[in-house]
Amino acid sequence: MARINENYLKLQSRYLFSEIGKRTKNFIAANPKAPVIRLGIGDTTLPLPPSIIDAFHKGIEEMKSKDSYKGYGPEQGYDFLRVAIAKNDFGSRGAKIDPEEIFISDGSKCDTGNILDIFGKNKIAISDPAYPVYVDTNVMIGNTGPANEFGEYEGIVYLRSTEQSEFKPPLPDRHVDLIYLCSPNNPTGSVLNREDLKKWVEYARKEKSIILFDAAYEAFIEDPQLPHSIFEIEGADECAIEFRSFSKTAGFTGVRCAFTVIPKKLKGYDEKGNSHDIHSLWNRRHTTKFNGVSYPVQVAAAAVYTEEGKKQTREVINYYKENAKIIMEGLKAANFKFFGGINAPYIWLKTPNNMSSWDFFDLLLQKLNIVGTPGSGFGRAGEGYFRLTAFGDREKTKEAMERIKAYKW
Amino acid sequence: MARINENYLKLQSRYLFSEIGKRTKNFIAANPKAPVIRLGIGDTTLPLPPSIIDAFHKGIEEMKSKDSYKGYGPEQGYDFLRVAIAKNDFGSRGAKIDPEEIFISDGSKCDTGNILDIFGKNKIAISDPAYPVYVDTNVMIGNTGPANEFGEYEGIVYLRSTEQSEFKPPLPDRHVDLIYLCSPNNPTGSVLNREDLKKWVEYARKEKSIILFDAAYEAFIEDPQLPHSIFEIEGADECAIEFRSFSKTAGFTGVRCAFTVIPKKLKGYDEKGNSHDIHSLWNRRHTTKFNGVSYPVQVAAAAVYTEEGKKQTREVINYYKENAKIIMEGLKAANFKFFGGINAPYIWLKTPNNMSSWDFFDLLLQKLNIVGTPGSGFGRAGEGYFRLTAFGDREKTKEAMERIKAYKW
Repeated sequence: MARINENYLKLQSRYLFSEIGKRTKNFIAANPKAPVIRLGIGDTTLPLPPSIIDAFHKGIEEMKSKDSYKGYGPEQGYDFLRVAIAKNDFGSRGAKIDPEEIFISDGSKCDTGNILDIFGKNKIAISDPAYPVYVDTNVMIGNTGPANEFGEYEGIVYLRSTEQSEFKPPLPDRHVDLIYLCSPNNPTGSVLNREDLKKWVEYARKEKSIILFDAAYEAFIEDPQLPHSIFEIEGADECAIEFRSFSKTAGFTGVRCAFTVIPKKLKGYDEKGNSHDIHSLWNRRHTTKFNGVSYPVQVAAAAVYTEEGKKQTREVINYYKENAKIIMEGLKAANFKFFGGINAPYIWLKTPNNMSSWDFFDLLLQKLNIVGTPGSGFGRAGEGYFRLTAFGDREKTKEAMERIKAYKW
Repeated sequence: MARINENYLKLQSRYLFSEIGKRTKNFIAANPKAPVIRLGIGDTTLPLPPSIIDAFHKGIEEMKSKDSYKGYGPEQGYDFLRVAIAKNDFGSRGAKIDPEEIFISDGSKCDTGNILDIFGKNKIAISDPAYPVYVDTNVMIGNTGPANEFGEYEGIVYLRSTEQSEFKPPLPDRHVDLIYLCSPNNPTGSVLNREDLKKWVEYARKEKSIILFDAAYEAFIEDPQLPHSIFEIEGADECAIEFRSFSKTAGFTGVRCAFTVIPKKLKGYDEKGNSHDIHSLWNRRHTTKFNGVSYPVQVAAAAVYTEEGKKQTREVINYYKENAKIIMEGLKAANFKFFGGINAPYIWLKTPNNMSSWDFFDLLLQKLNIVGTPGSGFGRAGEGYFRLTAFGDREKTKEAMERIKAYKW
């Protein structure tokens, strides 16, 4: 009989955003006229900028005639896109990344999950709270034991990010092999500075560990002192993999394009202690289990790096950043305690009256018709907190904050 | 130190098509004026039909304004596409498949590899010769031991498809849990008929095994008696998963859209013998490690099912089928022994003078400047055979056959 992967049976509940979707759907079914405002899932709402739309159309036009038609492309992505990324996202910031170290993919969610394919049994450290995919994919692949009463899995080292540490994860108090970091952070909006990252790189090099660095929100950094890539730190090319995405930078959540940077210097080890190139392993994985990103999508993504594209995507980001300001002003007026929102699209608020995160979710949905994201969905350290996103519509964001201000907390 | 997945070290060599690409590139570098014709990798060459181009553009136009912009979509795919598939590809052929049993993805290559995520330790049977991804992904995930002198992996049951069996794989002579079948077959072009599939379904139901049925080439079937889907066979919904793709049906190799059908009746088992829904497990995998297919791509794919789309994709298929005829006529004239090519886009030829597959590849490349695919790259039973594809350009296909006919074998 066909045996299933029993690790899936350890998973504690539905994927967070599916659960939010379900509760919201049920509420709307019961209250079809409720003016629901969604500030929950971090989904973009502004249209694609005109220069990206134009490039996207051009990519399709090429598929129309035999001479310019594109069939299978390189699984790793087209050179025109890899070169543009290497130059604009890394070279311009003093990080030496070769185009061949960049793997184009259809999403950072996929990559942060699939990356585990090329690793063996390792001690895993994950910031808490964190994007749920990091933990869930480790459970699925068998890197953990069962969950305990708090829904935490045996074998994972949770790095608690608390208010005391400005929601930055502490260095592990023991040896770990793989470390998940996300900066600007989802969900807390905190950002690691150069000093923080230097400490992490130092730790990882000493322990021969690998940092899985999720920089999906780097476009929201406004402080010029803050690093956008871990590869701005010397030595990071010996101990880090970086995940980037066009989703939040250029509104590609529904278009699907991302990339992962694996330096050629990066090594992993076999049982005997021999070193192996992580780049080669991922290249083998990527060419065997993936077939490249849609050609017109790659043409559209490359347009993000044109002068027009840069200007237009910056305008979109600024719109969302203005939303963040509106949310922060509203929360301030309603006497909430909150964090993030400045170099990140997320605002992380402390629930009032010590409510649990899900109780606050239900209250917000039922009383104020606002959908947010319960902090506890991101991990135990998120309990008592709640995430709002700046990706909403301007008028609706304002309206949501008016409702929050008017409510008697 | 970060440990790698050592199963990758068992992999015998480069992925077949990367190796072909490399040898071809080297040859062209040394002989820049050689008029190379590619009949190797099964890549489409005709442009996207006009109605699909139009739909693709329309999908992008929706991304241009705030009201119709699409961010994250359902990971499983949009209803409009799942409903069209259920009706046209299954309902119309008497196979009852619910839209919810269809998972839209960015490629069958990805799905046939990723599907192993949800399974545990199983006895795996793979037809030989076969698409290399089936074997390689099993090696990567640890379902095999090391390779032997023939490059075959311990633990896999190879189902030898030989000339005597019309290149159809025999039923296993023992119990197996997962079975990879591909019909119309890549690389041999053989097709399983209803009687064949009934035997497989009977075997799988008896053994509680699951058939992983790759039907990526079903659009090339012209014999009305042949099934296009395994779900046309009664009981298959209790023992099969089917992989389908728009790549070869509608020229989507560079556009990327495919789907996988997992019936809700399908069960797998845990160690204690309890049954679990495979559909739920895949849904969990799909929503956690994937983020849906590009919206405009799904709009384009749905256009394949309009009256115009059906007519235009049929014309494309017929063009390739005419190429297949030209190849078969050429091989006949040159006294080659060959198979397939009628209900499939692949022609499987016996190499002349008992040459090895790779020797024939090198000869064809160097002497006739034709790129094909060595049969041995698909498995041990492929040694001494060679695959040509009908996906080339008409004039180049004719020219290639002229060269083959003119050569003194």
